[in-house]
Amino acid sequence: MALYGAIEAGGTKFVCAIGDAQLNIIETITIPTTTPEETMVKVQSFFDKYEILTIGIGSFGPIDINKESKTYGFITSTPKTAWKNFDFVGTLKAYYDVPIAFTTDVNASLYGEYKAGIAKNVDSAVYYTIGTGIGGGAMLKGRFVEGLSHPEMGHMNISLHKDDQFEGSCPYHQNCLEGMASGPAIEKRVGTEGKFIQEDDEVWDIIAYYIAQAAFNTTLLLSPELIILGGGVMHQHHLLDKIRDQFVEINNSYINLPPIDQYIAEPSLEDKQGIIGCLALAKEEHK
Amino acid sequence: MALYGAIEAGGTKFVCAIGDAQLNIIETITIPTTTPEETMVKVQSFFDKYEILTIGIGSFGPIDINKESKTYGFITSTPKTAWKNFDFVGTLKAYYDVPIAFTTDVNASLYGEYKAGIAKNVDSAVYYTIGTGIGGGAMLKGRFVEGLSHPEMGHMNISLHKDDQFEGSCPYHQNCLEGMASGPAIEKRVGTEGKFIQEDDEVWDIIAYYIAQAAFNTTLLLSPELIILGGGVMHQHHLLDKIRDQFVEINNSYINLPPIDQYIAEPSLEDKQGIIGCLALAKEEHK
Repeated sequence: MALYGAIEAGGTKFVCAIGDAQLNIIETITIPTTTPEETMVKVQSFFDKYEILTIGIGSFGPIDINKESKTYGFITSTPKTAWKNFDFVGTLKAYYDVPIAFTTDVNASLYGEYKAGIAKNVDSAVYYTIGTGIGGGAMLKGRFVEGLSHPEMGHMNISLHKDDQFEGSCPYHQNCLEGMASGPAIEKRVGTEGKFIQEDDEVWDIIAYYIAQAAFNTTLLLSPELIILGGGVMHQHHLLDKIRDQFVEINNSYINLPPIDQYIAEPSLEDKQGIIGCLALAKEEHK
Repeated sequence: MALYGAIEAGGTKFVCAIGDAQLNIIETITIPTTTPEETMVKVQSFFDKYEILTIGIGSFGPIDINKESKTYGFITSTPKTAWKNFDFVGTLKAYYDVPIAFTTDVNASLYGEYKAGIAKNVDSAVYYTIGTGIGGGAMLKGRFVEGLSHPEMGHMNISLHKDDQFEGSCPYHQNCLEGMASGPAIEKRVGTEGKFIQEDDEVWDIIAYYIAQAAFNTTLLLSPELIILGGGVMHQHHLLDKIRDQFVEINNSYINLPPIDQYIAEPSLEDKQGIIGCLALAKEEHK
C-alpha cells in the first residue's frame, strides 16, 4: 500500500501522520515544539516505522517557499528563536530522500478543506486562522496564491471601530488586524480570555467588525468563492453570525456573492484539516 | 502581415488600435463613450478597414469574465446606464467572427506594462488606477487574479487618518479607499481639483497614507513583486514619494521587499499601457 508522511508544524505542537491515498490517517502522533533538534528526532522516529513515498509539510512561519532561493524550505524570521533559519526541508531530506511538499500551516488547512471538506466544490477559497496570531492562505483556480512569497494577510490595515479604545498589540503595526482581533489582543483589551467573555459583550461586535473587514478586503482583492474562518478565536461559535452580519453591512450589496452563510463559513474537518491537507499535498507530490 | 485589433474601453472614451505582432500600433482612434449603438458603430467602421486575426478588449466595469456564465462578455452593473448589461463580446462577435480576449481596463494596463513596460522582468504585479474611481488588477505567476470574478480592490477598507475630517464619498461604503482617495474625494474634501492643490498641502499626506495602506494590504494579500500606481491622481508626481515613505513606515520592516523605489512605481508607457495591453491580449488569443 502506498503511504505518505504528513507534518503539521505549529508553534506549540507538531502533528505527524501516516496516511494512504484515500487520505485516511493510519497513525498519528503529537510532539511538542521545543527545539528543532529535540522535535525533529521524534518526528524521525515516528516516520522510521514506515516506508513513505513523499512528505507534505504545513509549517508555521514565515517560511521560504521560493524554490530558486538558497533558503528554500527554511523557517525564516520567526520570533521563536530556536527555529529561526531552520532548514526544515533540508533536514528531512537528509533522513528521507523522497519528494517533499512545503507550504504554510494555513495553506495546508485550506488544502485539507479543498480536498476533503467544505471547499470541495470550489476552486477559489481563502482560509484564515484567527488565534494567537492571524494567518491567511489563499487558493485561486486550484493554485496557492504566491508571488514574491506567501501572503501575510493577518497584518492588514483595517478601519478602527469608533467605540474601541484599545491601542492594539502588534509589535510591528500596533493596530493592524492581528493587533486588534487576535486572541491575545482580545485578552489584553478585556483583561480575560475570550472564552470567559459573555456572548452579548459588545467587544464581540468590535472583533466581528474587524474580521468582517478582513473578509471584505479579501473579497475585493482575491475574489474567492468561499472564505473559511478557523482558529481558537472562532471557537466562540456565536462570533460567526456576528461577522456575517457585519460583512453584509459593509459590502452593502456592492459585490454580488453567494448566500452569506455559504460564503463565510467555519472549517468542517474538526481540526484535522491541517494534517489532512499535508497528507493531500504529500500525495500530489508523488504524482 | 498579421494584424490585431485592440479596444481600451473607458467610461469617457474608447481608444481603438490596430497593431502588429511586435505590439507596434499601426493606427489608432479615440471615440467618445456615448451610447453602445453610437460608439460601437464607430468602432466597427475603424476595424472594417483591416483584416484582423483577433481582438483584445480592456473594459470599464464591472464586467462578467466568467466564460461559463450566460452573461460572459457583458458590462454588468455599471452606473453608466446606457452600458448596463451591454453584451460587449457578443456584439463584436456578430461583426467579426474572430477570437476575442476580454478583461478589465486595469488588467489591460497591467498586461501592457508586463509585456512592454516596467513589469517586464517580473511575473507577479499589481496595477492601481487612481482617478475618478479606483480600480486594481493583479497578476500572479503570469496569470490574472480571478476567482468568483475580477478584483474590486478600489473599495477596500482602510484605517482613517487621525487628522482627516472628511466623511468619504463612496455611495456604497462611504469611507473606503475610493471614497477617501479618488480624484472626486480629493476635490470634495478640499473644494478644488488636485492639480490646483499645493505640493506641501497636508491633504497629500492624508491621501498618501490611504494609498500606502492600499499598497500595504496588497502586499500582504497578494505578495506581488511590483506595485504600479497609475491614473489621474498619480499625475501629481510628488505623491509617489510621499506614498513610498508612508508605506515604509506602515510596513515597519515586517515584510522583506525590494527597494521601495523599485517596488512601488509609476507606469512607464506614457498612457499607452492600456491599449498596448489590449493588443498583447489579442495576440495571445491568436496563439
